Amino acid sequence: MSKSVILVKPQMGENIGAVARSMANFGLTDLRIVSPRDGWPNEKAEAVSAGGLDIIKKATIFKDLQEAINDLEYIYATTSSKRYMNKEYISSKNLAEDFPSGLKVGFLFGRESSGLSNGELVPADKIVTVETGEEFSSLNLAHAATIIFYELFFTEGLGKRNIQNPATKGELDYFLNFLTAELGRKGFFKVGEKREIMERNIANIFTRIENLSKSEVQTLTGMVRNLSEK
Amino acid sequence: MSKSVILVKPQMGENIGAVARSMANFGLTDLRIVSPRDGWPNEKAEAVSAGGLDIIKKATIFKDLQEAINDLEYIYATTSSKRYMNKEYISSKNLAEDFPSGLKVGFLFGRESSGLSNGELVPADKIVTVETGEEFSSLNLAHAATIIFYELFFTEGLGKRNIQNPATKGELDYFLNFLTAELGRKGFFKVGEKREIMERNIANIFTRIENLSKSEVQTLTGMVRNLSEK
Repeated sequence: MSKSVILVKPQMGENIGAVARSMANFGLTDLRIVSPRDGWPNEKAEAVSAGGLDIIKKATIFKDLQEAINDLEYIYATTSSKRYMNKEYISSKNLAEDFPSGLKVGFLFGRESSGLSNGELVPADKIVTVETGEEFSSLNLAHAATIIFYELFFTEGLGKRNIQNPATKGELDYFLNFLTAELGRKGFFKVGEKREIMERNIANIFTRIENLSKSEVQTLTGMVRNLSEK
Repeated sequence: MSKSVILVKPQMGENIGAVARSMANFGLTDLRIVSPRDGWPNEKAEAVSAGGLDIIKKATIFKDLQEAINDLEYIYATTSSKRYMNKEYISSKNLAEDFPSGLKVGFLFGRESSGLSNGELVPADKIVTVETGEEFSSLNLAHAATIIFYELFFTEGLGKRNIQNPATKGELDYFLNFLTAELGRKGFFKVGEKREIMERNIANIFTRIENLSKSEVQTLTGMVRNLSEK
């Protein structure tokens, strides 16, 4: 069981540092950063991190999102507003009771300017939103993260959902790559169609399978291999 | 009914701006600032306030705390850790259910470096703490405020406690000043004793009277006047 924080293409070092400070406040330690705009290390991140300096120093940097979540088993993405997407949404107020126990869980936070893109939401099992007033709903990145960490702080010992032997995000991704490669080879993606969007829709379908286990991913992979054989 | 935010001697403009942004996120508008360290207006506060810029522009500046809360009827003070003080504490998690309906409520936040002093806690009816991990409990000012505003956002329509015709903080302060003046005149404060600390202890006693009404403050005042007469 672990809780990881994944910042996807954050822009300002001050916000990265503020997120790390808040992680330290609420007992989180694993910070992963995907392509920080201003490079790494970042002096401003260190300057505002306070008691989270050690978290900044030990943060792991990744080039792409998938790589950053391969070892994780359950992903929450955070967005400020509901977009159309066939995923389950929960309010941050319900996070503690929703939280799956015993898993390696990751929390995705998007860039300050525009949050997570639709593509970056694909690997998420669920989306968490922080309810705000309607007039100005754009939360500062570190403020949004602070609210999530605060709610997470009350999950210890709760965790009503118990998922057995879950597939990691890397295993699911391996299957999805295999599936779309086979589909491509078989001519499933017709010329002129937007392959990227179709692949995303397919990924969203499989990501929505609740409690997908390792052996089920193996079964799926076997099925595809069998179907696509000669 | 209203909710006011009172920053007591805040130090960094960035934090004042971040608080205002967060107020805007959660539908709060009344910002009061007691003796901001770097003067007012403050460019940095404006720069980071985003959708809270209007709140910054309309913020009211006060020289001392009492002046800033005279018109309010119920005060929560926020502290990061429990100190010895004979006041009721609640967790931010219980704020929504504790929140008194129909009153003019103020929230006090202290300076970044050291929070609220013991003297500044005196006018508070209750103290709210945000639970954190033990290793690093010092929350950034704007992060602490964001958590409180977030919890407050869920108080609309709740407010189980209903206090009738409450005394304002100004009316209570008027009584306390009258009381200690009369006590001083009568030689209550013996030479060599720490008058300031004794006055604070007295203030703390009367501040702890639950649901003190306007007419009760008048009764108290009348009693003191009567007792101290010739």
